[in-house]
Amino acid sequence: MTRDGLSPRVEFVTRNQVACYALHMPLKLPALDPESVAPRSSSAYPEPFRSRVLPRDKRALGDAFGLTTIGVNLTTLGPGKESSMRHYHTREDELVYVLEGQVVLRTDEGEQVLTAGTCAGFKAGGANGHQLVNRTNAPARYLEISNRHPEDVAFYPDDDLAYGKTPEGKHRFTRKDGSEY
Amino acid sequence: MTRDGLSPRVEFVTRNQVACYALHMPLKLPALDPESVAPRSSSAYPEPFRSRVLPRDKRALGDAFGLTTIGVNLTTLGPGKESSMRHYHTREDELVYVLEGQVVLRTDEGEQVLTAGTCAGFKAGGANGHQLVNRTNAPARYLEISNRHPEDVAFYPDDDLAYGKTPEGKHRFTRKDGSEY
Repeated sequence: MTRDGLSPRVEFVTRNQVACYALHMPLKLPALDPESVAPRSSSAYPEPFRSRVLPRDKRALGDAFGLTTIGVNLTTLGPGKESSMRHYHTREDELVYVLEGQVVLRTDEGEQVLTAGTCAGFKAGGANGHQLVNRTNAPARYLEISNRHPEDVAFYPDDDLAYGKTPEGKHRFTRKDGSEY
Repeated sequence: MTRDGLSPRVEFVTRNQVACYALHMPLKLPALDPESVAPRSSSAYPEPFRSRVLPRDKRALGDAFGLTTIGVNLTTLGPGKESSMRHYHTREDELVYVLEGQVVLRTDEGEQVLTAGTCAGFKAGGANGHQLVNRTNAPARYLEISNRHPEDVAFYPDDDLAYGKTPEGKHRFTRKDGSEY
């Protein structure tokens, strides 16, 4: 018995429970655990492009904090999936930081393997299309970071895909001749 | 001997070297390994604040890609060090994503421990000051993400510190009465 009347075993368990409680203390805003943010798996792409990127989990971390000038998504890309079609933006800088697994970055310079802890960046207005492809058998996880610009437009050099917006501001894609898929 | 004339040992080493080569293939822009970006350990704070944050390694990943609308820093904060004095921004949203180790987030709501894989976000214009403190014995590493706004100003609720800029646009700090430290 220890001086507080608990056996060593009970005391140990009690201490252990306290330690676990401290480690798993739920976070409250302005902090959060990304696991508490509902993942989205949707795409405005028409087929045959949509099924090349979905299913794909995106957790909109910036939105969860009410941020409006930057977008920060935590994305999990499954085996065989593509982050997007190869594209570039006119007004939005982008940076991708790989957290887990690996992806192939495809640009005009060819292909490179990005492993956890490496990153890639794409200045707005550069006409060098980029995409990530997961060619492994395991999910890859990365942060996608960009500014937000209401007049941003994306171009797709490899695909018959033209980006636009509906009158409500939602993404809308057509063929390059403007016709619907 | 194997059929290609190499002993099993040599064959194994050869295969291993090929694997290592593939894993350590140097990245080229628009990708990079953050280890190839020179870390900065400087602060515009006057004493006694400067030595509360330094030494502190910051790798400016966004700058390395020429990005101008967002800043993305990979920061390593040593034991006992603070990310900054507690502050808030008027025009810059901020998001911090912890990669390694743990830091204490201090805000008006009190203190919370952020472990690897968790994050915190601070909307521009909110008057809730924040800072990170490393109270462990190991370095902590995190990404600091923000938009960039030329008219952004920071306020320091806990310290006699006022933010300003020199005519050349560099950070400049005084006491709140405008006098020099």
